[in-house]
Amino acid sequence: MDNFTFYSPTYFVFGRDTENEAGTYIKKFGGSRVLIHYGGGSVKRSGLLDRVKKSLEDAGLTYVELGGVQPNPRSGLVYEGIELCRKEKVDFILAVGGGSTIDSSKGIAAGTLYDGDFWELYQTGVAPAALPIGTILTIAAAGSEGSGDSVVTKEEGMLKRATHGDVLRPKFSILNPALTQTLPPYQTAYGVTDIMAHLFERYLTNTKDVEVTDRLIEGLLLTMIHEAPRVLENPDNYEARANIMWAGMMAHNNSVGVGRTQDWTSHDIEHELSALYDCAHGAGLAVVMPNVMKYTYKHDITRFAKAAVRIWGCQMDFDDPERTALEGIARFRSFLTSIGMPKNFEELGAREEDIAILADVACNGDGRPGYLEGFTKLSQKDIEEIYRLCL
Amino acid sequence: MDNFTFYSPTYFVFGRDTENEAGTYIKKFGGSRVLIHYGGGSVKRSGLLDRVKKSLEDAGLTYVELGGVQPNPRSGLVYEGIELCRKEKVDFILAVGGGSTIDSSKGIAAGTLYDGDFWELYQTGVAPAALPIGTILTIAAAGSEGSGDSVVTKEEGMLKRATHGDVLRPKFSILNPALTQTLPPYQTAYGVTDIMAHLFERYLTNTKDVEVTDRLIEGLLLTMIHEAPRVLENPDNYEARANIMWAGMMAHNNSVGVGRTQDWTSHDIEHELSALYDCAHGAGLAVVMPNVMKYTYKHDITRFAKAAVRIWGCQMDFDDPERTALEGIARFRSFLTSIGMPKNFEELGAREEDIAILADVACNGDGRPGYLEGFTKLSQKDIEEIYRLCL
Repeated sequence: MDNFTFYSPTYFVFGRDTENEAGTYIKKFGGSRVLIHYGGGSVKRSGLLDRVKKSLEDAGLTYVELGGVQPNPRSGLVYEGIELCRKEKVDFILAVGGGSTIDSSKGIAAGTLYDGDFWELYQTGVAPAALPIGTILTIAAAGSEGSGDSVVTKEEGMLKRATHGDVLRPKFSILNPALTQTLPPYQTAYGVTDIMAHLFERYLTNTKDVEVTDRLIEGLLLTMIHEAPRVLENPDNYEARANIMWAGMMAHNNSVGVGRTQDWTSHDIEHELSALYDCAHGAGLAVVMPNVMKYTYKHDITRFAKAAVRIWGCQMDFDDPERTALEGIARFRSFLTSIGMPKNFEELGAREEDIAILADVACNGDGRPGYLEGFTKLSQKDIEEIYRLCL
Repeated sequence: MDNFTFYSPTYFVFGRDTENEAGTYIKKFGGSRVLIHYGGGSVKRSGLLDRVKKSLEDAGLTYVELGGVQPNPRSGLVYEGIELCRKEKVDFILAVGGGSTIDSSKGIAAGTLYDGDFWELYQTGVAPAALPIGTILTIAAAGSEGSGDSVVTKEEGMLKRATHGDVLRPKFSILNPALTQTLPPYQTAYGVTDIMAHLFERYLTNTKDVEVTDRLIEGLLLTMIHEAPRVLENPDNYEARANIMWAGMMAHNNSVGVGRTQDWTSHDIEHELSALYDCAHGAGLAVVMPNVMKYTYKHDITRFAKAAVRIWGCQMDFDDPERTALEGIARFRSFLTSIGMPKNFEELGAREEDIAILADVACNGDGRPGYLEGFTKLSQKDIEEIYRLCL
C-alpha cells in the first residue's frame, strides 16, 4: 500500500426530511449570508426550493439565489456567481441539486476568494481557498457531496477540466434519498453508471496487495448491481435509493481508494464526449468504460479475472483466466445495457469523423503531455482506437 | 435505512515513517504545548518516543510526558493527566500507543475541560468538550484513532464504561503499519479479534434492507480473514499489516455502520470479564462472541445464514438455513482458535463461581436497566446462560 493522507470532514445528514435542517447546519458552520445555487425548474416544481428557503428563514439567515446550472456546468455561470457573491458579500454557498450544481458551487466558492481568473484553478488543478459550501443532494451520482473535486466546462473550446482541494469539501451534505424518487429512469441510471465508474477507476490499480480497498470497492459495486434494478423497477423504493445514495458518497470520498494508484482514463476519454456533444456524463461513461477495459485488460489479466469472479459472479476458468477476464467485461457491458444505457457512438450522438479531434484534445488539450496515464499509458493513437471500439 | 448523521473529520496520515510528521500536524491543528501520553516501555525501547519528541522539537513545540497507561486504562491515570494538563497549561494531547492509550488520552482531554469529576462523563456517556487530540497508532485493534468513543475502567468496583462525543474524534491520526510489526503474535491476534467484533456488532442489526453497509462490513471481514493468517505467519509482512490497519479504522469510524441498529451486547458482556480479570479485551471477545451468536441466532436465522455464505464461504443449505447459520458460527469459532485466541473461561482465567456477579454488574451496574439490548433483548438470566456457554 502506498503512503497516503485521507481527510473527509464533511458532516453528512442522511434521511427523510433532512432538507428542512439546512438552515440549522449553515448556522452551525458559520454562515449568515447565503447564495442558494441550483439548476432548472425541478427544485422549484417539487417545492424543494421553498422548503429550503423556509429553513434558512427560520434560522434567521438571509440569502440570494442563482439558478440555471446546466448538466456539464459552464464557466459562464461560475463567473456570474463569483460576481454575485462578491457584490452581495455572501459567506456561505448552498448547492441544491446534483453533481453539476455542486461542482458549479465549488467553482464559485473557490473563484470568489481567488484574485485572478477562476479558470486558472481548473488549469492548475489546485484550489487553495474557498467559501464554505453545504449541499442538498438530489441525485446519487457524482459523489461531489463528499469530495474535494469539481469539474467545470469552459464554453470556449468546450474544455472540461477539474480542480481539487480540501477547501472544496462541503462543510455539510444533506442526503435525502426521497428527493431522488422523482428522477426519470435514465437519470437514475446515469447516476448508477457514474458511481460504478468511480469504483472501477479505483479498482484498476497497479498497486499490489491492497485487499482492504479491493474488498470495499467490490462491496460497493455488488450493492450497485443489486440495487439499480430495484429502483428502475420501482422508482419509489426508498430503501434501494438509500443504499445507492450512501454507496455513491462512499465511492468517491476516497475512503475505498486510498493507498493505491487509480485509473481515471475512462473519465478523461469521456469528458471529451460530454464536452463536445453535451451528452450526459453517465451515458458517455457507459459507452467508453467497457471499451477501455477491452483495450487494456491484458495489462493485468489477474485483476480483471478477480473482478469477474468477485463482482460479476463468473466462475474462474483456472486454465484460461483471460476467458474469465473477458467474461467479466462482457457482463459489465450487459448490465449497463440492462439499465438502459447507450452502448455506442450513435446512441450517444457522437460522430466517427470527430475521433481524431476528440483524441487530440484528450491528449494535448490545455497543456496535457500528449498521452493519458492511469492503469496503463495510452498514446493518442491508443485513444483513437478506443474511440473506434465505441462505434 | 434509518436516518443518521455521520461525521469523521480526522485527518489520517498513513504509511511508513509518518510518525516523524507528528510535530507538523500538531502545529497544523493549533497545538503549542503538548502532553505526550503513552503506555509502557515498548515505545521507549523501540525508539519511537525519541523520534516523536524530535519531531515536536523540530516543529518548535514544547511538551510534558505521562507514561504508564495499562491495557484497560484506569481512571487513576486519567485524574493524574487532567491535573498535569491544567498545571502545565497543555493545549494538545498526543497519544502514542494503542486503543488504551488513545482512550486514556480522550478521558484526559475531556476531563481537563470539565468542571466536575471526569467519571461523570463516563456515567452519562456524553463528552461535551475536550482538548484537541492527535494519535500515533501502534496496534490495529480498537479503532479509537478514528472514533469519538473512549472506554475507561474505574478501579473502585472495576467498572468499565464508555463516553462518546464528536469532540473526542482525533484531529489527526498517524497510522504506520511498520510500527505494528514488533507486536507479539497474541497481541496482533487480540487486535484482529477486536476489529472483527466491531464489524459483527454492526452486522447484527434489526434494520431491514441495508445492503450497502452489509456489503462494506462483509468486505472488511473478508479482509481480516485473509490478512490475519498472513501476519501471523510473517509478522514483518508490511502489506498485510497495512490492510489490517485501514480495515481497523474503517471498522469503527462507523462509515460502515450508519443507518442501522447495532448490537454491542458482546462488548458489554466482555467488558465485565476484562474489568474483573484484567484479561485482554480481544481475548474476552473471542470467548464471548461466538457464544452470544449461538444464543441469539434464532432471532434472525436468515442474517446468520447470509453471514455464513458471504463471509465464511459456506454453501447455503436452502432446505435448512439454520444449519448454514450454525456452520457460519462454527467457522468463526474455528478461525479464532486458528489465530491463537482462547475459547473458554479457563483459558481466560475467568471463574464459573463469578457468573452471577458478572451478569449482575453487566445488567445493573452503574445505573443500567437490568438487561442488555442490541440485536435482541437479554435479561440477566440470559446473560448468565451466555457466560455459562463460555465455560
